[in-house]
Amino acid sequence: MNKRSLAVLLRARMRPNNSTKLAFSPLPNRSRARAMQPSSDNANKPQRDFEHVRDSMHSAISMNKTEVIDTVLNDFSEGYFSLCYENRRRLLLVLAKEYDLNRTQVCELIKQYLGVLGEEAQSAGHEEDGVLGSFYRIERNLRHALKPMYEGLFERLNMHPGGLKVLTSLRADILSILAEENIASLRALDSYLKEKLGTWLSPAALELHQITWDDPASLLEKIVAYEAVHPISNLLDLKRRLGVGRRCFGYLHAAIPGEPLIFIEVALLKNVAQTIQEVLWDDPPIPECEATCALFYSISSTQRGLAGINLGKFLIKRVITLVKRDMPHISTFATISPIPGFIQWLLSKLASQSKLAEVNDISQSSADRSGSAFRENILEPEEEKALMDLSEEFVAGKNGMERMLNLLTSKNHEWSNFAPLLSILKAPLLRLCARYLLQEKKRGKALDSVANFHLQNGAMIERINWMADRSENGLHQSAGIMVNYVYRLENIEEYAQSYFSTGQIHASDEVCDVCHYVEPLYEHQPATDKRG
Amino acid sequence: MNKRSLAVLLRARMRPNNSTKLAFSPLPNRSRARAMQPSSDNANKPQRDFEHVRDSMHSAISMNKTEVIDTVLNDFSEGYFSLCYENRRRLLLVLAKEYDLNRTQVCELIKQYLGVLGEEAQSAGHEEDGVLGSFYRIERNLRHALKPMYEGLFERLNMHPGGLKVLTSLRADILSILAEENIASLRALDSYLKEKLGTWLSPAALELHQITWDDPASLLEKIVAYEAVHPISNLLDLKRRLGVGRRCFGYLHAAIPGEPLIFIEVALLKNVAQTIQEVLWDDPPIPECEATCALFYSISSTQRGLAGINLGKFLIKRVITLVKRDMPHISTFATISPIPGFIQWLLSKLASQSKLAEVNDISQSSADRSGSAFRENILEPEEEKALMDLSEEFVAGKNGMERMLNLLTSKNHEWSNFAPLLSILKAPLLRLCARYLLQEKKRGKALDSVANFHLQNGAMIERINWMADRSENGLHQSAGIMVNYVYRLENIEEYAQSYFSTGQIHASDEVCDVCHYVEPLYEHQPATDKRG
Repeated sequence: MNKRSLAVLLRARMRPNNSTKLAFSPLPNRSRARAMQPSSDNANKPQRDFEHVRDSMHSAISMNKTEVIDTVLNDFSEGYFSLCYENRRRLLLVLAKEYDLNRTQVCELIKQYLGVLGEEAQSAGHEEDGVLGSFYRIERNLRHALKPMYEGLFERLNMHPGGLKVLTSLRADILSILAEENIASLRALDSYLKEKLGTWLSPAALELHQITWDDPASLLEKIVAYEAVHPISNLLDLKRRLGVGRRCFGYLHAAIPGEPLIFIEVALLKNVAQTIQEVLWDDPPIPECEATCALFYSISSTQRGLAGINLGKFLIKRVITLVKRDMPHISTFATISPIPGFIQWLLSKLASQSKLAEVNDISQSSADRSGSAFRENILEPEEEKALMDLSEEFVAGKNGMERMLNLLTSKNHEWSNFAPLLSILKAPLLRLCARYLLQEKKRGKALDSVANFHLQNGAMIERINWMADRSENGLHQSAGIMVNYVYRLENIEEYAQSYFSTGQIHASDEVCDVCHYVEPLYEHQPATDKRG
Repeated sequence: MNKRSLAVLLRARMRPNNSTKLAFSPLPNRSRARAMQPSSDNANKPQRDFEHVRDSMHSAISMNKTEVIDTVLNDFSEGYFSLCYENRRRLLLVLAKEYDLNRTQVCELIKQYLGVLGEEAQSAGHEEDGVLGSFYRIERNLRHALKPMYEGLFERLNMHPGGLKVLTSLRADILSILAEENIASLRALDSYLKEKLGTWLSPAALELHQITWDDPASLLEKIVAYEAVHPISNLLDLKRRLGVGRRCFGYLHAAIPGEPLIFIEVALLKNVAQTIQEVLWDDPPIPECEATCALFYSISSTQRGLAGINLGKFLIKRVITLVKRDMPHISTFATISPIPGFIQWLLSKLASQSKLAEVNDISQSSADRSGSAFRENILEPEEEKALMDLSEEFVAGKNGMERMLNLLTSKNHEWSNFAPLLSILKAPLLRLCARYLLQEKKRGKALDSVANFHLQNGAMIERINWMADRSENGLHQSAGIMVNYVYRLENIEEYAQSYFSTGQIHASDEVCDVCHYVEPLYEHQPATDKRG
């Protein structure tokens, strides 16, 4: 291939497969093709296939512990991946309901237990060792009786080459089903499986691997397919992310070879970047010896089935340790992170507040003030006025909040291309974003999932950046705003601890100021109201 | 270094450290030195150290789940390894007794459970989902309540870098204590820990690594230290075992880096070797392309703390698959194995039978025949006669069995250097050995541990070999006899299955013949007796 053709190839757009509802089979291509088009292959005999897979599942669970069951487990795995969504759902419900625990046996043991308790009370300390022995025996039996029968399938798949991957696919499907229907038995199965996966995937058993351009194409393909934050556009983009001034680290597990369970992309920079564009487009990068900051600009999990098992926390800690060891001149560890929930939260806030304002306007001459207690000062009066003036040609809306809502949901994010509008929106959006990050909680933890992730790992909120991600996705989810979290080594443990115990969010003075700027307004609210 | 000095170095005798009662610390040298000489360092303040370690153990168990506890776990691990045997014993007993489960909580949940059971009986099928939900909830809580508190320590160490190694050391110590005293609480703890270790060390998560002369010295040192079957005499011996015509495979786990948990040594040969000398001394080996047999001549576990967790079974299966793939001309997979329990069993058999024979001789004229029902025909009359004649100058003894016993226990195994004695002993020892391997059982399984290991993996007994291991150890444990087990791929599953379910031992006709040779004598026994 000549130089020019190579250049074209490297720049060609890469399109990872769209994800479907089904977890893909980890099996070779032939089976995989079947898994992806289940209907065409199985349309004529779905019932028979289902029964077959159900039978192999039964064999896998009921075979004796030391029997050689490789073939049975392979048969089950292949069969499972050949099923369509509806049949997988049926099978998982069979598993959850018919392979639950044996309650008769549990009751029998409970009675024995209560019996021993009675004996102990009578003997009052005599023969203590004998009684203890009985306790140990029954407790052990009870522990085993309380294991659902499906535990057998999980344990065996875990022991079986390729089985852990099957289990994560199984759980991905379970999560898809639970997202649509809340089925108690399936939820119990999911919580059991999640706990098991958590202990099997101990971070100490994960191998930290630096992913480079020298890695197998099959591994690099996974990076492209799973990059969830900033899609990789072409081979050149991928090559740069693995080249000078960049690092990419993944956690590999011996039982799931050839693909990282989670990976993180790092840029070595002079200063903490304030936009993702700087990171993705800076070319050439600075010499590594001049870097003082390691910026984590993307972290992606590859296994939907491992949702809720926090491997990222350990990955970040290990990467920090590694980078610090290899490059002592790096003193700042920060992120440039998306704020995935901001706009969703803001739109619902704007809708409800604009409604309240309307009600208020109608009833302002009457004695009805019922709505006002819930009213919040979203926009300053001068912000509202400027917004009403400038947005007229783009969207309709009776008040500033309605205009803002309509602008943010307008096609192609037109607002972002009109400089005067941008400059009007900047202050209120940054303020509201700071408030969202610092104050909006769910069960005492940050509402934003990425914020919650970094805060529980011991980071602090350092800076909120305007127009930091101009991509379609960035404008859509956070109006282009991004945030820098910083990991200060000396504070990580303390911050993680206080966030865990009291929900306290640590932030720089700058961010607190942006947020608190709006605070006095809350206090003025009644006065404003009276004026209205 | 010149060629000659190098040759001297390679031939220098290697002396692995003698093992002691204490599990060694996996920590760096400084700590290790302390662990190995605990008394000198700790003599003046053992009490304080003990309390300190106890405190750190308490912290490690009682800290909250998401707290950062690396320092606490490191502190506990270092502290533990610094303790002397007696203090480790004390600490483990504290762990077993004071960090057991909360029985009050278990009782509370049991009562709730019985309550829900009552409701279910009353509702008789109505509101089934609600009742099921209650079951799931209480069962989940009960499952958690039935976990002893020390589970927290185990789980946390498993998650912690280096922690799995600490856990195996802990269990090694527990096994040492249990070998001397049977303590119910410690036995319960051991069985709990063993189960945990078993699921954490899933064979699917182990990496099969071919160990070669290119591996780090630190890894090769482990091979020398842990080779349990045929000690490695010098570097040249080690190099040959890793060179042409030889293979060495180990199972590595990501959480215990730098040392295999178990390894197996393989020789590529033209035929199944009948003595270990052929394997260890054949020089030069045959060209690998001429080999038709892969002979497993040594398999060693490195972690005492993993006793009872059968990793060898999976290792053998994977090695067979790998060798078959890389060298399709290899069609036979066999072992040359020790028979570690043979002489121990034979000596006790000889002692009791010689005693019975004596009693019988005294009472032969009287009507007392009580002993005769237990008498077995150990030696043929002509064997007994020849033995009495030839052994006179070596040992005393009133009958053939006593002579045999005294010969086998004589210093330096003098009998093995006197050809006429050897040829007299050969037939009865081979016959008795075949009987030991084929017929002597314990709980339905082969009494010999190595036999049991290979039989449960699906091997068969192919051949019993005379003077196959003339080493001190070989003569001592099995009168120099070794056995070939053969793994026939087409039968492995079936044999493993039938051995598991009925205890059936598969053996070649040749071995059965040797064994059955003595069978008719059993039937003649009454006649012989009457003659006596």
